[in-house]
Formats: sequence, C-alpha cells, structure tokens
Amino acid sequence: MQSLKDRILSEGQSLGSGILKVDAFINHQLDPQLTREMGEHFAAHFQDYGATRILTAEVSGIAPAYATGLVMNLPVVYARKKKPVTMNGTTYQASAVSRTKGDVVTLSVSSDYIAPEDRVLIIDDFLARGVTIKALVDIVEQAGAQLVGIGTIIEKSFEGGRTLLESLGIEIYSLAIIDSLDDGKIKVR
Amino acid sequence: MQSLKDRILSEGQSLGSGILKVDAFINHQLDPQLTREMGEHFAAHFQDYGATRILTAEVSGIAPAYATGLVMNLPVVYARKKKPVTMNGTTYQASAVSRTKGDVVTLSVSSDYIAPEDRVLIIDDFLARGVTIKALVDIVEQAGAQLVGIGTIIEKSFEGGRTLLESLGIEIYSLAIIDSLDDGKIKVR
Repeated sequence: MQSLKDRILSEGQSLGSGILKVDAFINHQLDPQLTREMGEHFAAHFQDYGATRILTAEVSGIAPAYATGLVMNLPVVYARKKKPVTMNGTTYQASAVSRTKGDVVTLSVSSDYIAPEDRVLIIDDFLARGVTIKALVDIVEQAGAQLVGIGTIIEKSFEGGRTLLESLGIEIYSLAIIDSLDDGKIKVR
Repeated sequence: MQSLKDRILSEGQSLGSGILKVDAFINHQLDPQLTREMGEHFAAHFQDYGATRILTAEVSGIAPAYATGLVMNLPVVYARKKKPVTMNGTTYQASAVSRTKGDVVTLSVSSDYIAPEDRVLIIDDFLARGVTIKALVDIVEQAGAQLVGIGTIIEKSFEGGRTLLESLGIEIYSLAIIDSLDDGKIKVR
C-alpha cells in the first residue's frame, strides 16, 4: 500500500531497539482516509476467504479492523486486555508479553462473540514478534472456530513474527513491510 | 437514533448497580453498519461547529470517533490510558476513576496531536458520571485548544454526567438516553 509506505517514511520515527513510532497515523492519531484505505486493502485481499467475523486486539487494532469490517460488512470483535465487569460468562483467554509496554497482557474474548462455525480473519496493527497475534490465534482455536487469514498494517520482518506464525499454514498479509530500523533509518520493502 | 435504541432494548443487559452491558455492539463487538450510522449522526449534528479534530479515549471510543472522523474527514486522536514508550515529548494528562474497572485511569495525549488552534469535538461511548469526558475536556484546556462539542453514544441520565459538564456551556449530544436501569429494566427515552 503505497500511501502507507510514504507515510511511514515521512512521519514514522525509528526510536531504537526496533521500535517504530507511528503515533501520527496509527497508534495515537488516525488519518480517516488512510485508515479507510487500509480497510479497503484488507477487504480486497481477503474477499474470497469466506470470513464471517473479524478479530482484533484493543487498542490500536480497533480502527483498521473496523475499517475492514465496514467494507466486508462483517462484525468486528476486539479482544479486551483488561476484563471488564460486563464480561461475564465463558471467556477465552490467552497471554502475550508486550514489548512497548513491558508487561504480560492477557487477552479475553467472550464466547458470545465467537462461535465454532465462525471463519475468523485476524486484523492487527503490527506484526513484530507475533506474540499478540499468536494469542488471538489461540483464542480462535479455543472457540473451535476456523482461522482464515491474518492481516497486519506493518510487519517488521526482522522480528520473526511471520516465522512464528508460518506453521499455521495461514495467509499472512501486511500492508507494509519494514526490513530494518538500524541506525535510526526506516527501510521499507 | 432509532436503530441504536432498538438495539439497546433487544441486546443490552442491565447488570445491576447502573451497569448497562452493550458488549454485543459497542464494548466488545462492533456492528459495522450500526457504527457507521453512529458516525453519520454525530457528523450531521456537529457539521456546523467548525471542528478540526476529534478526541476520544481508548478503548471503546475509538470506533465511533473514527466513524465520525471518516464522515467529517477529520483526524481522530485517542487518549491513551497507559502511556506507551512511543509517547515521548510533551504530554497532556488528566485522571478519572473508572467504575466498571474500579481503578484510576490517567489519560495521556501528546502535544503533537492537539494544537492551540484546534477546535475539538469529543466523541465517546458513554456519558455516565462524566468523569472520563471531563478528563478529555481538561486535556483540551491544557492544550489551549477550543472545545466545540461533546457527542456520546449512550447517556445514562440518572448518573449526573450532563450536570457535571453543563457549566462548560458546550453542546452535549447523545444518540440514546437511558433514564433508568432499575429492576433490570432498560428505560430508553
């Protein structure tokens, strides 16, 4: 997605330790048209995968997942990082260690919003080490649903997430791939 | 917004202690068309207020704020509840006590994404006691920006949020108003 790559190069910042700051258009502020375009790209790529539901993780996955759900006309479920009091009943849970925040995050999804007959498309903001997406995959498996694809806005190829997820045999589609953040320089594939 | 009121009555649940569960279409799962419609209603209501930016709070404010930003073609900023490592530089902060989660939440917004010349429209999921929205208002004031309106999906009129915010002299628009959750019954105005 060229407009995204341009934006990463013009407004992204490499903060060191492999951290890419894209707060200007993904993680803190959203550009409505860029986000819409992300949704259109995900929807076009996965249109023939028979998805019945989109799953993402709060916080930064919500906007691109919703933008995709809007085009595909699919419900979007966002896994909660802190189980709210409204989440009663059976809950699927899986944990991941967040590097940008440094703590263990347990994702929770109510069994009310993911069914065994669902075909689930996972959408998230980053594919880095793949641990958050792996937790979402675990939740899909706990629900007995079928995972049909994984879409991420930005993949950091040097952090191994694709390798972690490859054994699933599932299509992984990233809108932009970053091959290096060394020396403060962002190298977009 | 009639479709929202219908949905609250058919799928909302009064859990006691004034808590309304709307996880099926706001707080855990999103209905793409209903969310789109919310954005259209907010955009229509506030179209002449000269907003230049939309401000919300993660998590559940993001989808309706983005849906509004998409129609109004405005950038959407979501205040972070846990300051991520990417949020360096000047940050505006304000605190609120979350009742559904029971702890103090400090909202953070980078000064990079809200400017003194901004005219800010606040969009959030609930207006209950008004403390989260009040924290967002504080952040707008810290930035020296002008608040032009407040839009919420569901207002619980019996929790006093509108009274708390009324002294601001700002338009507060809710898509649905709940007048009572007593005895497990949802009374929509």
